[in-house]
Amino acid sequence: MPINSDASAVNGTGHTDYGENVVNRLKKEEEVEKATVRKLSKEHDIVLKTFRLLIADLCQQFNGGHPGGAIGMAAIGIALWKYVMRYAPHTPDYFNRDRFILSNGYKAMTFDQLKSYHSDRVDALCPGHPEIEHEGIEVTTGPLGQGVANAVGLAMATKNLQATYNKPEFDVVSNHTWCMIGDACLQEGVALEAISFAGHLKLNNLTIIYDNNQITCDGSVDLTNTEDVNAKMRACGWDVIDIEDGCFDIDGLVEALNKARASINQPTFINVRTVIGLGSAVAGNAVAHGAAFGSTDVTNMKKMYDFNPEEHFVVGEEARKFFEPLPARGQEFVHAWDRKVQEYEAKYPELGAEFRRRVEGRLPENWKQLIPSSFPDKPAATRASSGLVFNPIAQACDNFMVGTADLSPSVNMSWKGKVDFQNPNLKTACGIAGNYSGRYIHYGVREHAMAAISNGLAAFAPNTFVPITSSFFMFYLYAAPAVRMGALQRLQVIHAATHDSIGMGEDGPTHQPIELANLYRSMPNILYIRPGDSEETAGAWITAIEAKNTPTIISTSRHALPQLPQTRRDGVASGAYVLEEAEDADVTLIGVGAELTFAVDVAKELRARNVKARVVSFPCWRLFEAQSREYKRETLRKHRVPAVVIEPYAPNGWERYANAAICVKRFGHSLPGKAAYKYFGFEVGPMTEKIERYMESIRADEILRQEFVEL
Amino acid sequence: MPINSDASAVNGTGHTDYGENVVNRLKKEEEVEKATVRKLSKEHDIVLKTFRLLIADLCQQFNGGHPGGAIGMAAIGIALWKYVMRYAPHTPDYFNRDRFILSNGYKAMTFDQLKSYHSDRVDALCPGHPEIEHEGIEVTTGPLGQGVANAVGLAMATKNLQATYNKPEFDVVSNHTWCMIGDACLQEGVALEAISFAGHLKLNNLTIIYDNNQITCDGSVDLTNTEDVNAKMRACGWDVIDIEDGCFDIDGLVEALNKARASINQPTFINVRTVIGLGSAVAGNAVAHGAAFGSTDVTNMKKMYDFNPEEHFVVGEEARKFFEPLPARGQEFVHAWDRKVQEYEAKYPELGAEFRRRVEGRLPENWKQLIPSSFPDKPAATRASSGLVFNPIAQACDNFMVGTADLSPSVNMSWKGKVDFQNPNLKTACGIAGNYSGRYIHYGVREHAMAAISNGLAAFAPNTFVPITSSFFMFYLYAAPAVRMGALQRLQVIHAATHDSIGMGEDGPTHQPIELANLYRSMPNILYIRPGDSEETAGAWITAIEAKNTPTIISTSRHALPQLPQTRRDGVASGAYVLEEAEDADVTLIGVGAELTFAVDVAKELRARNVKARVVSFPCWRLFEAQSREYKRETLRKHRVPAVVIEPYAPNGWERYANAAICVKRFGHSLPGKAAYKYFGFEVGPMTEKIERYMESIRADEILRQEFVEL
Repeated sequence: MPINSDASAVNGTGHTDYGENVVNRLKKEEEVEKATVRKLSKEHDIVLKTFRLLIADLCQQFNGGHPGGAIGMAAIGIALWKYVMRYAPHTPDYFNRDRFILSNGYKAMTFDQLKSYHSDRVDALCPGHPEIEHEGIEVTTGPLGQGVANAVGLAMATKNLQATYNKPEFDVVSNHTWCMIGDACLQEGVALEAISFAGHLKLNNLTIIYDNNQITCDGSVDLTNTEDVNAKMRACGWDVIDIEDGCFDIDGLVEALNKARASINQPTFINVRTVIGLGSAVAGNAVAHGAAFGSTDVTNMKKMYDFNPEEHFVVGEEARKFFEPLPARGQEFVHAWDRKVQEYEAKYPELGAEFRRRVEGRLPENWKQLIPSSFPDKPAATRASSGLVFNPIAQACDNFMVGTADLSPSVNMSWKGKVDFQNPNLKTACGIAGNYSGRYIHYGVREHAMAAISNGLAAFAPNTFVPITSSFFMFYLYAAPAVRMGALQRLQVIHAATHDSIGMGEDGPTHQPIELANLYRSMPNILYIRPGDSEETAGAWITAIEAKNTPTIISTSRHALPQLPQTRRDGVASGAYVLEEAEDADVTLIGVGAELTFAVDVAKELRARNVKARVVSFPCWRLFEAQSREYKRETLRKHRVPAVVIEPYAPNGWERYANAAICVKRFGHSLPGKAAYKYFGFEVGPMTEKIERYMESIRADEILRQEFVEL
Repeated sequence: MPINSDASAVNGTGHTDYGENVVNRLKKEEEVEKATVRKLSKEHDIVLKTFRLLIADLCQQFNGGHPGGAIGMAAIGIALWKYVMRYAPHTPDYFNRDRFILSNGYKAMTFDQLKSYHSDRVDALCPGHPEIEHEGIEVTTGPLGQGVANAVGLAMATKNLQATYNKPEFDVVSNHTWCMIGDACLQEGVALEAISFAGHLKLNNLTIIYDNNQITCDGSVDLTNTEDVNAKMRACGWDVIDIEDGCFDIDGLVEALNKARASINQPTFINVRTVIGLGSAVAGNAVAHGAAFGSTDVTNMKKMYDFNPEEHFVVGEEARKFFEPLPARGQEFVHAWDRKVQEYEAKYPELGAEFRRRVEGRLPENWKQLIPSSFPDKPAATRASSGLVFNPIAQACDNFMVGTADLSPSVNMSWKGKVDFQNPNLKTACGIAGNYSGRYIHYGVREHAMAAISNGLAAFAPNTFVPITSSFFMFYLYAAPAVRMGALQRLQVIHAATHDSIGMGEDGPTHQPIELANLYRSMPNILYIRPGDSEETAGAWITAIEAKNTPTIISTSRHALPQLPQTRRDGVASGAYVLEEAEDADVTLIGVGAELTFAVDVAKELRARNVKARVVSFPCWRLFEAQSREYKRETLRKHRVPAVVIEPYAPNGWERYANAAICVKRFGHSLPGKAAYKYFGFEVGPMTEKIERYMESIRADEILRQEFVEL
């Protein structure tokens, strides 16, 4: 019988009840000792103690960090990394390795260079929250819930590669994805979306390990969550395994993890009862979560565990020996896989070459030639152009996994003959079937999970997958935290965002983006591109596909736009370029995306009124910023010629490139696109007059020329 | 036996299977007729047909809209609005009315002025998605999932008022909240968060009515969601009622709705099987969702229903009669409530006056005097100052419902003697109890639901509640879609966002906001305020509390800041103000929030180097924009003196007020706050030198003076 049988008693509402008595009992030296006698081999006992004290020491040295959870998860860590996970410590990027995602990311602990944890060292390999830039870290988590969705993406990546490349005698891809989560992850919407979707997809190669310590910052979890989590997971299609004694029961954990790996038809949820900060004075208490224990407590822990309180970061001979075989075992995994792939390549030369290309993260070399070299000279919505440009590439290049948040009919991202990524046994009411080699993903109305899962797909291995998401641009506010994590991790994910600007029409202010572009134009390491016609849409896709370490949002119109003869696909890569030049110009008009055509029309009207107007097309700020100072000055000429930007967004930030803006600073209005444009003054006549009046006003007030004016 | 018994058959995985046969059968005229004979009174039959044809006509007239769902929900609508809902058509703001939330908001149909639906009329009362600005509309939904969380907030509002004001013989508040949702709402994370929380709170006064038509844009729901939704809802603590024949079974619906209203201990989930676009040629098909049926099909529908195909918008005598009693019944509700409140006020004069104040949306008059008139002259984190300022107000003014996303120890929003808003029977492991009169809300790690629920609290009645949310600023990216909806609806919700800027330290780039301020500075109708010390924090709260129709984000520091003698609480209301003036100034330094102190220090250092520097404190863009042109010019003097802003955010938008920025344009770094500032160059010495070099460079290059430079 496990020591914390009281602690793991499940009450009527189905949640675990860690009463004060239990906690007090657990932290008493004698009880812990009894437990170790009863449950643990001497070897496991010493390794567990070593882990826990290391964590306590680490947090103590700079007096900060998150010790409690890491200590509570020590036994899980040992079960997983010693006995179950297939990985190679010396070849961290081994392609077929099991993936491990720490969704409760603040508990991050890597075994080497640990001493930089929470330090002020700029080159710290072990920051407060783990980041992908460090070797051996699969994804950056931290903001809760993201990791769960990342893990779903990683498991989907495996499924897709297996279905595409494995042969009965050659399972060249066979890895499992393990995701450790805490109580908080199960509260975040993005995780709940992803859990529901993973159950639907029957991802049997995915296991969530729930560090169920029933503690968050505010106190016990039952302050805010009393649901029956196991029943909820089962309702979502997951198999559930309970571990009652998660702080000690390494054997039980190993058994559960192996069972999860062997699951045939479902993802697995292992509900592991643990005690946060076990062994410390604050065991079972919220205080254990986010602060060091204090030197007295750490000293007491060491005494209790028969360690020398004067020594820090002690990893004794026994603990070292315990982990010693892992690197060699890891290299054996690597070599066995290398051999297998070589045999596979010999037997299936064509498929083998394809597989090699994917492993190396390369696209088929001809991808760019698949883009139409020209487009019909008739008006087209850029969301339609986007399909024309990308669908042939998606069809031909299996790196692309293309998903939509239930907007297939609107976003034009599906191609002829596309196969859905689905559990092959699924029978749908509408008759659409699929299998795991499919590359079109119906994410449902789960924008946030779509983006976070796509990060997981992209993180499987560099550019092995290039995930595409698609939805209305406004809904990328739902997805924003995941889009941000993709940018932070330099993952190439391409977001096909349609229905941008008030031109999207009737759905009204809830669907009309006003301020959202500013989020993405300000966000580091992401390209927000608004192409103005088919040619620029081609340019946007080329730029996005060539940006191997950067996510891109391609922001397109719902409504038809004329094809402008002066646009150039290679102009997009410069961020902005001169569309129409004028000698001794009086004004520069900056046109953007769906409203580029307005700039061209207004310029024409201005010229008819003897105002010499030049036109700059400006699809992407970040790409423009990367140009030389000379190019930027020559393109804009803002110091010589006043510039007016035309874009129905909040103008903040355009001040850098323009002197005035025809813009929108309130929420939109529910009107058909044309009427919405009219309502906000985006018609050639009124815009032309506004610009003329502006030019008069700056002649009258020279300070105004230096200020930014909303027209 | 209901006609669609096949349709409602539940398959092994627990989801409803609407096969093609069923759909075909349902749309056949004879089957519909049989059903009406079997299930419906003649009266209900004619009203249902009237509704369905009205909807078809409405979408047809401008050839757009979302007819399918509205038609599928017709019987639900009749059951609810005719038989169950307590409301007053002629007094739409009747305080004790039942609240109805249409979370699947694109199905909005109001009975009057329907003809403006989807039109190009600027004054349309019936836009594509319903908005709160129109009388009788409780909240603006549209982006899916928001409505569910809004409804939870509305139900919480009722609970709190009941627990605070009701007396055994006087239930002055007794309303129920009804929330209609579609398949998609159950996929969105924000709804899943709110559902879990509502179950925890045991909100028996809340009912979700699930329009289970198993269709979304991409096809049948089982393309993407095959979970057992009833089991999931039960696991979340909800009572579940099934209605198999939701297109016709008005009696069954009424019974279920009444049962839900009478629920003692749980919120209720009514799972109503319906057929999207019933009676049309596209019944049961995704196509029925977002497009008009076409005139042929509408004609056929009318023929099938024995209506004249040549007539449109027909509401016959029988249908009119059916709804005729509702206004009188509504006025009786209003009068009975008025009488009850008068008696209550007579019997409980003090409580009655308080209740009246709440009904009228007024704060206690002395609220502003509760703010300390001065602060200790020692460094303090503005998150701590925020507590000092607001806690006494929260304690004394029961309009404030104060919540946190599991960051109570960090955000300082709880006050002495605060009582938690909880189900009074809840026993927590950590021993913290509460009841429904409590005004402190542990939302759990559910930032998005927290903000959306707060919108619901605020929407109960104007300013009856002023909800406060709190979390780290970076996590307001998770909450952003709900914050936006609050701004769009002009709801006063105050977001206490702590840990802003890289100064928040060790948690690293996932927690350090770089770009987020630009989202909120660009978002219409919201104030983003960064106070620089305690005095400005007082100003921020005063501004936020006085902004009755505008949400505010008060963005505070994790780390201690010196108290600056020149700051003024009334300066905040101007957005920006001169902190230190200088005659014949060489440069203006703009300081913001946690970095205001840097501007003061750098100015001092510059003066020591004979550079005359003035300092402007700039806590809020939007408030500054509202000032007169003269005030703005006099404060900034940008045309005469170059201005440099110091803020470790992406600088986009500062171009309007400054010529150069000491800023951050990449993601942050995991370092303690001071070290992070140092890493990014935010130290007095390096900043001073940067500014000196900048001033040299603009002397050398006059174009540069007109451009924006990142230092």
